[in-house]
Amino acid sequence: MDKLDAVLACIDANADAALERLFAVLRIKSISTDPAYAAECKACAEWHARDLASIGFEAEARATPGHPIIVAHDRSVAGPSALFYGHYDVQPVDPLELWEHDAFEPKLDTRPDGTKVIRARGSADDKGQLMTFVEACRAWKEVAGALPIPVTVLLEGEEESGGRSLPGFLEANAAELKADVGLICDTNMWDPATPAIQTMLRGLVGEEFIVTAADRDLHSGFYGSAAANPNHIVARILADLRDADGRVTLPGFYDGVPELDPALKAQWDALPFDPRAFLGAVGLSVPAGEKGRSVLEMTWSRPTAEVNGMGGGYQGDGFKTVIPSKASAKVSFRLVFDQDPHKIREAFRAFVRARVPSDCKVEFLEHGGGRAIRFPIDAPAFGKARDALTAEWGREALFIGGGGSIPVTHMLKTSLGMDVILAGFGLEDDRIHSPNEKYDLKSFHKGIRSWARILHALSK
Amino acid sequence: MDKLDAVLACIDANADAALERLFAVLRIKSISTDPAYAAECKACAEWHARDLASIGFEAEARATPGHPIIVAHDRSVAGPSALFYGHYDVQPVDPLELWEHDAFEPKLDTRPDGTKVIRARGSADDKGQLMTFVEACRAWKEVAGALPIPVTVLLEGEEESGGRSLPGFLEANAAELKADVGLICDTNMWDPATPAIQTMLRGLVGEEFIVTAADRDLHSGFYGSAAANPNHIVARILADLRDADGRVTLPGFYDGVPELDPALKAQWDALPFDPRAFLGAVGLSVPAGEKGRSVLEMTWSRPTAEVNGMGGGYQGDGFKTVIPSKASAKVSFRLVFDQDPHKIREAFRAFVRARVPSDCKVEFLEHGGGRAIRFPIDAPAFGKARDALTAEWGREALFIGGGGSIPVTHMLKTSLGMDVILAGFGLEDDRIHSPNEKYDLKSFHKGIRSWARILHALSK
Repeated sequence: MDKLDAVLACIDANADAALERLFAVLRIKSISTDPAYAAECKACAEWHARDLASIGFEAEARATPGHPIIVAHDRSVAGPSALFYGHYDVQPVDPLELWEHDAFEPKLDTRPDGTKVIRARGSADDKGQLMTFVEACRAWKEVAGALPIPVTVLLEGEEESGGRSLPGFLEANAAELKADVGLICDTNMWDPATPAIQTMLRGLVGEEFIVTAADRDLHSGFYGSAAANPNHIVARILADLRDADGRVTLPGFYDGVPELDPALKAQWDALPFDPRAFLGAVGLSVPAGEKGRSVLEMTWSRPTAEVNGMGGGYQGDGFKTVIPSKASAKVSFRLVFDQDPHKIREAFRAFVRARVPSDCKVEFLEHGGGRAIRFPIDAPAFGKARDALTAEWGREALFIGGGGSIPVTHMLKTSLGMDVILAGFGLEDDRIHSPNEKYDLKSFHKGIRSWARILHALSK
Repeated sequence: MDKLDAVLACIDANADAALERLFAVLRIKSISTDPAYAAECKACAEWHARDLASIGFEAEARATPGHPIIVAHDRSVAGPSALFYGHYDVQPVDPLELWEHDAFEPKLDTRPDGTKVIRARGSADDKGQLMTFVEACRAWKEVAGALPIPVTVLLEGEEESGGRSLPGFLEANAAELKADVGLICDTNMWDPATPAIQTMLRGLVGEEFIVTAADRDLHSGFYGSAAANPNHIVARILADLRDADGRVTLPGFYDGVPELDPALKAQWDALPFDPRAFLGAVGLSVPAGEKGRSVLEMTWSRPTAEVNGMGGGYQGDGFKTVIPSKASAKVSFRLVFDQDPHKIREAFRAFVRARVPSDCKVEFLEHGGGRAIRFPIDAPAFGKARDALTAEWGREALFIGGGGSIPVTHMLKTSLGMDVILAGFGLEDDRIHSPNEKYDLKSFHKGIRSWARILHALSK
């Protein structure tokens, strides 16, 4: 039996113990956006540092202006080096009443078809995914006494809350962190049977604005129509943001957005993708984006504007004839190709200001931003990783686009000059960011085996 | 000294005792919306019944499905009869920390300019106002042994909590309650020196709608632009509701809305009203309603559409790249002249449905409705009341419009066919429904004298 086979056998033999470790970390309520959970974030960081140290990494949970960042090195062998990134923080869990179980009490469920799923907040995003890599390292160390290549593990605790500490951290520690290739496990498979490496990522601009009209809440019977209503102002701005054809109306928004390369478009059109099934899975049927674009284009290669939150006035039961003093909205733009996040943020602010009456005020809160990215799929590391995934899953791994933004990918590319292999084992129905998040047990187990293979392949 | 002069002298002589009685009723925590205060509401009703009985009314606190309704008759004389309506319940007092004193421990404060104010929850809305009428009756009985006209007093305990018991009560007791004219003391003066009778009331349609798109919250990175976003749909509907000139765009909305009678418009234009001061008092300066209309028209004689609440998606601190499953809004329309609440509700629902994509759902919640009302200002009773107010305050009493709805006024008009004289002594800075509610001592004292004069005038 060669080394890789022994490692895979070790992973199979220790599957229950790996699951126990994942459950332990899923019980930690590391909600990064809510200051009430700061101690849990710290506890989660310390758990990971201890765990990585236990398998031979030089591991530290390092303080930042926000939540700790874990850096762990195992450079006992020579060869091309890898930097693995994951995040130990999770999304908030509201609305709580929609969870069918305690979000932080992980459990293994068997579905009617016999497949098993791990249920908990963070099971897929990203604790379950990041632990696939850690468990692969553990098996290599146990079987071979060393990793196939030098590895640094970098775990962040602010991915779900703007990631403010990471850029400065990467810059300050660039020499220590730079490696020949980046590895991230925070993406999806193509489908439950088909692995995929995401090689295009959209960028992001997150922006919140708050409109203040009168200096107090008013009675709409007395002030209605005479006094500016910030709900109307916000609704108007949000409505103006897209035209009847679904195009974003910000001036200059489409600068740097070419049509897709015809060869790539042909490849995408040939993918086994059914837009009706994609939308049907969440109870919808009508693509809501730009007219004349395919759903894959909408979600992979076209920029978007989405209102992620809006609110103003009385939202409780019953009715209150109030004109609120304030109303607000949170808007995100997904960027593609060469769109400039800074220019788009400025264009949006100008767009909003132009629609706020002269006697009202508007303030802006910046919530992260980053450019879109494309990786060179003909570089050797990408081919090796694809072949390793193909071997594990018995199905040709795909190079795909993707709709989400993974800001750290952009930072690794920009600050450290690294290409990143985005190989993840999430599935579309994982309900990440929603109540009842899950991660397939198969994703977890074969994800560990996949990383064991990729580490091996990269050493060749 | 004629009888009226003697009554006015009696009111002046007994001013302190009247204030003591008001303080006694202000100490009762008759918060109708909170079941925890049901016993206090009952105690308050019984206090009023006893008090009215003590001055010779046949008074009863009658049980209802909600809080008791007091009916008190004094029909010992002949002549045109009056039904006086007031409410003994009060608004909740939260947020408690904003009160500068105990909300239910009334006190008399002297302001820097030497004027005195009564501070307590309910001092203006409506205990202080309703007691002006009761004290006027007391003085007439004490001085003349009888009221100038037959009077029925009707005091409700659910005005601040939906008033569910009153419509059925009015219908069931229509014959007993019907009078030649209605009297209500629950409105404001024009300004602290100028009395007013409100003769136009706008109607109301309250409506809530909830748009459901996907059957769960989605990640905007994966589904953005492909999946319908209910925030966009709701924002579009709300934005479409008014055009660039501030007009409501619902088809047929302005049916039954004539231009204001030129004579009345001229009278309003001549009123000492400064729109800049009106808006400036709440930190605004630009009238937000229909272009080409005065602020008084906007708030008195033109119909409006106001978004009282809207919400969807993540509204907490930080950012969540979510596409919510649902978003909603609460909208109220103020109606004037002959607008039909039913037709407008239906037009609004059709307007909303036309803007909800075929794969999304919308549901509606009805939140009350009623027609606008105008009273015949050339009817003799209105002229008599105006002259009585003019005599007391030494300043011509005004017939004014008003933006708010007073549901009981509509009921008295619709169920009992009665015109209602709305004469009140509240002031704009009374902070009704807010912390630190007050009622000017001058409003209380001259309010009592005003009703003494109006009762006398109506008997002539």
